[in-house]
Amino acid sequence: MRLLKRLRALGDALFFGCATDEFNAIKGKRAIYPYSHRVEMLKSCRYIDHVFPEVSWDQKQKDIVEKNIILFGMGSDWEGKFNELEEFCEVVYLPRTNDISTLDSIKMVQDRAFGAETSETSVHQTEISFC
Amino acid sequence: MRLLKRLRALGDALFFGCATDEFNAIKGKRAIYPYSHRVEMLKSCRYIDHVFPEVSWDQKQKDIVEKNIILFGMGSDWEGKFNELEEFCEVVYLPRTNDISTLDSIKMVQDRAFGAETSETSVHQTEISFC
Repeated sequence: MRLLKRLRALGDALFFGCATDEFNAIKGKRAIYPYSHRVEMLKSCRYIDHVFPEVSWDQKQKDIVEKNIILFGMGSDWEGKFNELEEFCEVVYLPRTNDISTLDSIKMVQDRAFGAETSETSVHQTEISFC
Repeated sequence: MRLLKRLRALGDALFFGCATDEFNAIKGKRAIYPYSHRVEMLKSCRYIDHVFPEVSWDQKQKDIVEKNIILFGMGSDWEGKFNELEEFCEVVYLPRTNDISTLDSIKMVQDRAFGAETSETSVHQTEISFC
């Protein structure tokens, strides 16, 4: 959420690509909530202006051009992974310092309920944001 | 979140009372996140206009008068619990139909990680919203 706030501050509008359930399945991931719920939650965030479906690995370049994106931003855990997009717009990786990720939250819930000896889940964050 | 959206649609601004950590302790509750984090998350929600600290059981009447609240809204799981406030403003209890509560989300995370046989947690939702 803090990452979204900082990304939003870098531009005039933030476009957020939300992986569809089908694309998550291709990636071997499964979100806690179905796509429609995730979109609804993202739209409730005041730092996100537009939500669009992410359906494939290779749509970023096309989206950047079509949506006139000037800056592509990700958390620094993705550092260097999208450098090929620098041909089309500025690419930034923002540190997640002091931020709390979805996985951290899930771990906190598990720790609360079951003590600290809990296993990792297969839950993953929705991943891509455009600014 | 859907409840907040519907509450916001009933007025011009939504005031959300967020229980402080100290007040939660008095109630025998403990939130996943500290007060400062919860306020930050609430402020990121586009349906909430103002967040204020909830520090005691008996502040609602005073808050309603001081903030010129015309409508007090809660989820219907609180049905009838705040009727005494009708002297000061309209009181509504909105059904949570099709909504997903914090507790539901936590249960879904637990089910995902540990199967359906999980115990209840001591996690509680932040409770009061003004519109």
